[in-house]
Order: sequence, then structure tokens, then C-alpha cells
Amino acid sequence: MTIRYPNGKVYRQPSHSKSKPSKFANVNFGDRGMSLEEEINDSNTYYLENDIAVIHKKPTPIQIVKVDYPSRSAAVIKEAYFQHASTTDYNGVYRGKYLDFEAKETKSKTAFPLKNFHDHQIKHMRQCLHQGGICFVIIRFASLGRLFLLKATDLFSYWDHQQDGGRKSIPLTDIEQRAAELQYHINPLIPYLNAIDNIIDEKPSSN
Amino acid sequence: MTIRYPNGKVYRQPSHSKSKPSKFANVNFGDRGMSLEEEINDSNTYYLENDIAVIHKKPTPIQIVKVDYPSRSAAVIKEAYFQHASTTDYNGVYRGKYLDFEAKETKSKTAFPLKNFHDHQIKHMRQCLHQGGICFVIIRFASLGRLFLLKATDLFSYWDHQQDGGRKSIPLTDIEQRAAELQYHINPLIPYLNAIDNIIDEKPSSN
Repeated sequence: MTIRYPNGKVYRQPSHSKSKPSKFANVNFGDRGMSLEEEINDSNTYYLENDIAVIHKKPTPIQIVKVDYPSRSAAVIKEAYFQHASTTDYNGVYRGKYLDFEAKETKSKTAFPLKNFHDHQIKHMRQCLHQGGICFVIIRFASLGRLFLLKATDLFSYWDHQQDGGRKSIPLTDIEQRAAELQYHINPLIPYLNAIDNIIDEKPSSN
Repeated sequence: MTIRYPNGKVYRQPSHSKSKPSKFANVNFGDRGMSLEEEINDSNTYYLENDIAVIHKKPTPIQIVKVDYPSRSAAVIKEAYFQHASTTDYNGVYRGKYLDFEAKETKSKTAFPLKNFHDHQIKHMRQCLHQGGICFVIIRFASLGRLFLLKATDLFSYWDHQQDGGRKSIPLTDIEQRAAELQYHINPLIPYLNAIDNIIDEKPSSN
């Protein structure tokens, strides 16, 4: 059955499967039916299994109201609700650095709407950046099949400008200039750590 | 109502409250009824609100089977199950470093049973360590009111020895020698980052 978040978005069960990412990456690369979340999870599995990085998606926080105990080994949650996370979805460690990011997609062909991000995500990324973490967003223009990695500091400038009455989206032309475009690959499906290498190697504290 | 994990441990709802930690820390410090998890969450709130570190407990992963949609804004989960996490409970960033840890307590007065840890947690900490993260466990001897921070590498040596038929717990006397003892404080309740400062400052890559 299809399970949806309150906002109507389809909920996907974390896979925890042991299937080699290499196998289905061969079949499914480049916008062929996987969600951006699935593509990133797949890439993270590749990075993990190849000792390149340890990056996980955090579980969705759930408020539990009622649990039944038919037996101690099989507690059944009978009433619970989706909660808003107080952080971003992904974090982990790579080359000794703390990484923290969010992944979002749009159907727009011309600009990335800022409403895809939430106050608490922006606040969390500012906090992590302040502690020396590397923070960014991976954004996909689904209709164009194009994928970018934008540094959080660049996102903040549009976010803050919006708060002051500025435009409510980031033009694709600006993203083309400021962000790193990511090309779909096989292993990993989305080689986004290459763009992180550039950030780390450029200026250690400029992310 | 009291909600329990399959292992019988009481489930505590994450607070997300905005109450000042300073207030209840004054009332509740030093083993006065809070669980170790609550004490660490409280300390992390203090560190976050004072721009010292960004460390969060990950939500418990839940497998969702059935959801009702009385309206789009209030999806109700009607059947779901607790899952085992594939990582440790806590991670975050401090002084530009990735921190990753687990917190456990025992009623024993003489040794810390290794059965408090799980294979996947040990594996995850090894992976994070390999990427340059700082990994450790915070362990509490509840009956003694004593609290220690033990580096993951020290834990591994006992863990591996156990796999080879060695003893199934770490003697308190060994912990006293190898770990940093943490003293309850007011703000934060458990000032565990002081011990991390020593790890960072001693040898940058020796954690």
C-alpha cells in the first residue's frame, strides 16, 4: 500500500536490504523511477560498503500514542503520528569532516522554490556550519533530470533575501553559476562526494 | 501511559520542549530520577542553545504498516513496529569534529556487561572511526551514581576479546583506569565535551 506523509508525499520504507547497490544501479540510473531519496540512500550504501564515507538518513520522528503488547517480542504500535524533524535528513562523516545536508526536488524548469526548505532546517544548518560542519543541499530539477549540490551559505543568501521580501525561488541560471552540477553515474549513482572534495580542498573553512 | 520497547525498556517521547534546561537542571542533577538518555538530551540542549555543539539523538526507526487518512493534515499510523537502528543513538558536530556515541547504563557495581552493546553499533563506530570521527560510549553505573566516557577503541579491545572467548564485561577497575570519569554538573548536566576536548587536544587522530 502507499503510505503518505501529512503533506501528501509518499512515505518510503527504509530498505535495510543487503542487495548490492551495483546491481540495481546498473538498471536504474539517471532519473529512471527512483526518488531522489532512494538515489541518495543507494549512493550512501555504496560509500559505506566501500569505506568511503559513513552517511545515513535519519529515521522520520514519530510520536507514539498507543502500543499493544501481544507479547514482549512483538510490541505493536496502534496509534502514532508523523512529527517534523528538528534537523536535516542526512548527516555523517567523510574525510574527518562532519557533513549535514538535505535533499529536495522540484518539477519547475526555471527556478527552485524556497518553500521546499523549512525554518528548522535552515536553522540547523546554520548551527552545524558554526561548529565547522560542511552543510549543503542536493536539489533536483525532476523535469530536466538535472541535479545540483548547493552550499548552505549560498542557500542562506536567497533564504534571507526572501525574508526581506525578495523572490521566493532560486533561478536555475543562478544555480548553474553557484552550485556544482552532479552527473548520474553507476557506482555511486550520485557521486556527490566529489563536489565535497572540492569544498574541502578549496578552503578548509569556507563551506 | 508507559510505552515499552520490545526489550521491555521504557520508551520516552522526545521532548522538543522549549523549557530552559538551566531551570530543571537545577532541580534534577546527579541521578535524581532522570534516565541517562534524558540527562544526555538535556546536556545536548544546553550545548546547542549555547552554540557549543550540535548533537542530537536520532529518532527510533519505526516500520510503518498501516496509516489512516481521516484528513490530509492528520495521518494516523494504525500499525507499526519498532526496528533496530543500524547506527548509534547520538551524533553531531563539535569543534569541526564528527562525534558519534552510544549511552548505556548498568545496575552492576563491579563491571559493565558487554551485552549492553550490539554488533551493529560496534560496526558503525568502527566505520565512523575509520573516517576520522570521534567515537565513544558514555556508561553509567546506576547503583554507584558513577559515569564514565570510554573511547570506542578501548571498548573494541574488550569486545574483540569477548568474541575470542574472553570475559563478557569490562571490570570497573579497568574503566577507572582507561575511561574519563564524568562528574554531574549544573549547566550542562553531564559536561562530557570536556573529556572530548582532551581527546581532540591530546592527539588529533588517536580517538
